[in-house]
Amino acid sequence: MPKGKFIAFEGPDGSGKTSIIKVLGPMLEKEGVEAVFTREPGGSPIAEQIRELILDIDNTAMDYRTEALLYAASRRQHLSETILPNVQAGKMVISDRFVLSSLVYQGVARAIGLEAVWQINQFAIEDHLPDLTILIDVPADIGLERIEKARGSRQYDRLDREALAFHQRVRQTYLDLIPQWENIVVIDGNQSVEQVSLECFETLKKRGMIK
Amino acid sequence: MPKGKFIAFEGPDGSGKTSIIKVLGPMLEKEGVEAVFTREPGGSPIAEQIRELILDIDNTAMDYRTEALLYAASRRQHLSETILPNVQAGKMVISDRFVLSSLVYQGVARAIGLEAVWQINQFAIEDHLPDLTILIDVPADIGLERIEKARGSRQYDRLDREALAFHQRVRQTYLDLIPQWENIVVIDGNQSVEQVSLECFETLKKRGMIK
Repeated sequence: MPKGKFIAFEGPDGSGKTSIIKVLGPMLEKEGVEAVFTREPGGSPIAEQIRELILDIDNTAMDYRTEALLYAASRRQHLSETILPNVQAGKMVISDRFVLSSLVYQGVARAIGLEAVWQINQFAIEDHLPDLTILIDVPADIGLERIEKARGSRQYDRLDREALAFHQRVRQTYLDLIPQWENIVVIDGNQSVEQVSLECFETLKKRGMIK
Repeated sequence: MPKGKFIAFEGPDGSGKTSIIKVLGPMLEKEGVEAVFTREPGGSPIAEQIRELILDIDNTAMDYRTEALLYAASRRQHLSETILPNVQAGKMVISDRFVLSSLVYQGVARAIGLEAVWQINQFAIEDHLPDLTILIDVPADIGLERIEKARGSRQYDRLDREALAFHQRVRQTYLDLIPQWENIVVIDGNQSVEQVSLECFETLKKRGMIK
């Protein structure tokens, strides 16, 4: 059986990744692609327990390096329990965030340093990188506005409390890291979810992710 | 105010570390030493939540590298919330286990590799090593026998399910690592708790940990 593909969606909070992935599901199904949709932090039973720890709004005393190590721990477990077995079984695995998120958020936005954060993540992933990373880019103010709008229906978590300056740094860091990242495509997220999802689908075809 | 000292107790499960530390408490108090007793994994509210994840017997699917990253995360939080503030405040901090445990258990016994485990721990501790490490050495069979005896009163956790071969590897690795570890003293744990505790106390004095 041929190995499946591992696709990661990246982008700042409010870029619309999660909604896009939901629209993409039926498109892939129609194409006969067996896809598994997952997310980080989390994506496996133990990784979801780690997610709860990270996002618990009562854990305000959490050190940034503790947080970075917890993300890496969650990623390792997600990889070993969910991503690799499904890719081996020939499925397409689509993850809402992967290692690039840690480089951006922990490495730069939290100012721990790219090299240090890359090292603990390399310990976690042992060279298993996505076959394709799709970066959904939106200006920080639009991302934040979307988050605010969704607030009514969405659980308020610790990370969303960050200010606009933080979101701007995150967006800029994603853009800055593109030249250093292999197999990455940037898609303009400042369009309707349907348009963005269609562009993602076309990209998957063009890049040979769908046979 | 002069900085306090940071002391780590190390040794295989069943070496008696925890009991020894309990006897040591009143001895130090009598000497006028203000001591804080703590442990790993755990030792701060967030670190204790990470401990629960690691030791949960239902988490049998936990990957060894996930486990190693969780230990490092717990250590970082323990250091930043408990160890460093107390040492800064002039207190003696006595921790039941620290980074050497990860080198022994995750690095060698779990076969992840010393260098890789050292790197993620160096990310966590940023050069903050104990002023003195006291290694309580007991033969593996005696350690295991003590664990079995204590079973009635003690919660059965995932780590204690390991076999004698594992305990032997752990003990030998501790001994093998001594030459590479700075500021370490080995104490024979195959004596009464009172005798071992007294030896630890004398060692703390001799090594200038008690003024």
